[in-house]
Amino acid sequence: MARIGIIGSEGAMGHALAMVIAAAGHELSGGVDKGGDAARLADASDVLVDFSAPGALQHNLHAAIGAGIPILVGTTGLEDVHHLAIDNAARAVPVLQTGNTSLGVTLLAHLVREAASRLGPDWDIEIVEMHHRRKVDAPSGTALLLGQAAAEGRGIELASNRESGRDGVSGARNSGAIGFASLRGGTVVGEHAVILAGEEERLTLSHSAENRAIFARGAVKAAEWLIGREAGRYRMEEVLGI
Amino acid sequence: MARIGIIGSEGAMGHALAMVIAAAGHELSGGVDKGGDAARLADASDVLVDFSAPGALQHNLHAAIGAGIPILVGTTGLEDVHHLAIDNAARAVPVLQTGNTSLGVTLLAHLVREAASRLGPDWDIEIVEMHHRRKVDAPSGTALLLGQAAAEGRGIELASNRESGRDGVSGARNSGAIGFASLRGGTVVGEHAVILAGEEERLTLSHSAENRAIFARGAVKAAEWLIGREAGRYRMEEVLGI
Amino acid sequence: MARIGIIGSEGAMGHALAMVIAAAGHELSGGVDKGGDAARLADASDVLVDFSAPGALQHNLHAAIGAGIPILVGTTGLEDVHHLAIDNAARAVPVLQTGNTSLGVTLLAHLVREAASRLGPDWDIEIVEMHHRRKVDAPSGTALLLGQAAAEGRGIELASNRESGRDGVSGARNSGAIGFASLRGGTVVGEHAVILAGEEERLTLSHSAENRAIFARGAVKAAEWLIGREAGRYRMEEVLGI
Amino acid sequence: MARIGIIGSEGAMGHALAMVIAAAGHELSGGVDKGGDAARLADASDVLVDFSAPGALQHNLHAAIGAGIPILVGTTGLEDVHHLAIDNAARAVPVLQTGNTSLGVTLLAHLVREAASRLGPDWDIEIVEMHHRRKVDAPSGTALLLGQAAAEGRGIELASNRESGRDGVSGARNSGAIGFASLRGGTVVGEHAVILAGEEERLTLSHSAENRAIFARGAVKAAEWLIGREAGRYRMEEVLGI
Repeated sequence: MARIGIIGSEGAMGHALAMVIAAAGHELSGGVDKGGDAARLADASDVLVDFSAPGALQHNLHAAIGAGIPILVGTTGLEDVHHLAIDNAARAVPVLQTGNTSLGVTLLAHLVREAASRLGPDWDIEIVEMHHRRKVDAPSGTALLLGQAAAEGRGIELASNRESGRDGVSGARNSGAIGFASLRGGTVVGEHAVILAGEEERLTLSHSAENRAIFARGAVKAAEWLIGREAGRYRMEEVLGI
Repeated sequence: MARIGIIGSEGAMGHALAMVIAAAGHELSGGVDKGGDAARLADASDVLVDFSAPGALQHNLHAAIGAGIPILVGTTGLEDVHHLAIDNAARAVPVLQTGNTSLGVTLLAHLVREAASRLGPDWDIEIVEMHHRRKVDAPSGTALLLGQAAAEGRGIELASNRESGRDGVSGARNSGAIGFASLRGGTVVGEHAVILAGEEERLTLSHSAENRAIFARGAVKAAEWLIGREAGRYRMEEVLGI
Repeated sequence: MARIGIIGSEGAMGHALAMVIAAAGHELSGGVDKGGDAARLADASDVLVDFSAPGALQHNLHAAIGAGIPILVGTTGLEDVHHLAIDNAARAVPVLQTGNTSLGVTLLAHLVREAASRLGPDWDIEIVEMHHRRKVDAPSGTALLLGQAAAEGRGIELASNRESGRDGVSGARNSGAIGFASLRGGTVVGEHAVILAGEEERLTLSHSAENRAIFARGAVKAAEWLIGREAGRYRMEEVLGI
Repeated sequence: MARIGIIGSEGAMGHALAMVIAAAGHELSGGVDKGGDAARLADASDVLVDFSAPGALQHNLHAAIGAGIPILVGTTGLEDVHHLAIDNAARAVPVLQTGNTSLGVTLLAHLVREAASRLGPDWDIEIVEMHHRRKVDAPSGTALLLGQAAAEGRGIELASNRESGRDGVSGARNSGAIGFASLRGGTVVGEHAVILAGEEERLTLSHSAENRAIFARGAVKAAEWLIGREAGRYRMEEVLGI
């Protein structure tokens, strides 16, 4: 049993975390949101989970360092200055920063990197995702994360090999391209498939999320894993032993 | 056993037709290509199958009328003038014109029309297709045919409700839109899925072609079906009794 | 806005119904469970929704007749005697009895019947379903309902053509068989796919439930539809206009 | 360009190999079948590919050793005595023995092992496969190979954890079980999916074969890879660098 403190406790993720922490038999040491006292929360916690805003990051990292406890940073929209602050904090305490706390997606990205690396460039890579009708951007962040993993596996740049939004007469597929397609509809939580299409055979590696709670569940698993680690910057993959 | 004559016998479809005709126990009465004598072929046939070019259509229809036999027109790229010629010919002999001779796709279009009609506009419709890496246009003709069936079922215009090539921040899905996404890779013959996504449930109606021979096989079934019919213009659906 | 009364209000379905009734802008006129006064509830309602137990059915039908209002019967485990009671009640009030209140599944069954009927016996039919790890029986009731629809479409008996649980050397597939396969795992709410596999092409018609609430939502749609109908026994398909 | 000799040249695999060898720009140094002179073939070849019968294995290995060239053994139905013979031969020349020469399936097995190992026993594993209507046994050999990979990844025995042919009231899923389901129909070449179902999320890793030629193609890739290796026994995974 760990004492887990939530920063960003009033957001959707904060609420989901509170439920998962209780269900997993941990103690919710408290929660703070805008203007809350993260340092005091840190003193009562074994680990902090931060899903707040980039502007609060420096303050939250200091709270963790002050209490000598690890911190999971799941906040999105981070820029170079924030990553620098995380690197600095990681000299004092364990810090895990990630844009996706789902264990399934984290593993999928690893498998995609591996597959892209082994199969070579004559296997075409296509990524298709589906989300609910209210999502305003495409492709999804997770689709781009999977595309990045594929590009790394293949040893190429994603930006210069990305093919999105096919429509009309665009000519044959570019050799080495990584294609993206986005479906929108209904209440779909999130489906992602990476297709590797070779000569008369295809591999498809896919992930289906039934509920957004998986992100809170993965975050709590990562928080558990962080407790007792040495200072340093960690990745989500390491929670899975990768 | 029927005597089937092929117009456009030197194309890929012509070759596939010859094999299917033999495998089905029919007699290949002959084949003509550019500049060939369709009238003479018609005299030796119970039915003609035309997969040639729009420019030859008028000539081919006359051959069928001259011999008093039915004709299947699978030629693509037809314009208004060609459809007028078909309507005229259909006063004299049975003519079935279609852009897709696969029985599976024909049935799928019927099911999509039915589903779109029954479920109402709060079920979002998305169409996703995958073809081999050499295909130069998107969406596929079959995807558009399925989108047309969905639009008919819903009683809307496809052109003004079509949403293709999502990429970037495009805002939430338009209510009533029919979305298209195209994947390209490997040697995929043709996969099509129509997704109807409602409130916490989804229907997916899909077709997978293992081999281009299905188009020849469906064309031969349609040719068999045409023999002995009254003069008139027929649709592929009617071969399935729809 | 309708006044909807729930019989079986303390079960999981009863709770889901209460939420959907509120969300849809209707009035929950009340709920009764074991030993509750269904007649009094009926007097305050425009329609009754019964998800209780077969033993209470006769009493509930009388309550509806007494108040002169329609009743939806979603109770499972009905035997011949119960169906007889429903037929009798249907002379006085509108009664809709169904084993599955999902609109998507209802439509899927219709599409499967249609496809099986049009394609003929050389297209093999396979049904595969996946549910959560705690489900104790296989195939699911919905899979059997879809198999029944396929058998009807093909004009055969399901019982004598059913092929389940393939394992070991069982010989080639029986011509005309309808195959069933059941997957179990995780927290899957319910996925069903009906595959029609022909010569080098395949149709797959599938349904995915994201949440058990879809059954409550379909039940409320059916209840709305029942209000104002003539006395008679109705089927779920009719709610979709089929 | 390599000189490749086929043992078992009159079988379906022998014919497929001859076509792939030509298409890949290699030289077919010859083919032998029952009673043919493998030693003479070996003298004219850079590598042998053996898809014949267990009874000929010893003879074929000797032929490779006599000529000092590598041999790929794709023959099925091998017993302990054959594996012993392969181990002995592998002291003299490079020998790669495998039950599945598809590169896609080989990679899939690796990914399944990795996923099963990383995710832990609270993710349920289900394997579903589909093959044409004439296949007489279930599950397929490839499905069992994938199940074996999953069992290895999880550190359990497949035999004592295998759950096949669910039908009837069988109770909840056994914790740690690896489930198998087999679909049969049409002309499906081979589809395999491994599902890892966790708490509200699912990973699906699947392979689709469009044509049996992929086994010949993978065998030729493996043969190319074997040329110039040191003596030793190799696995198909190593061709992919795994």
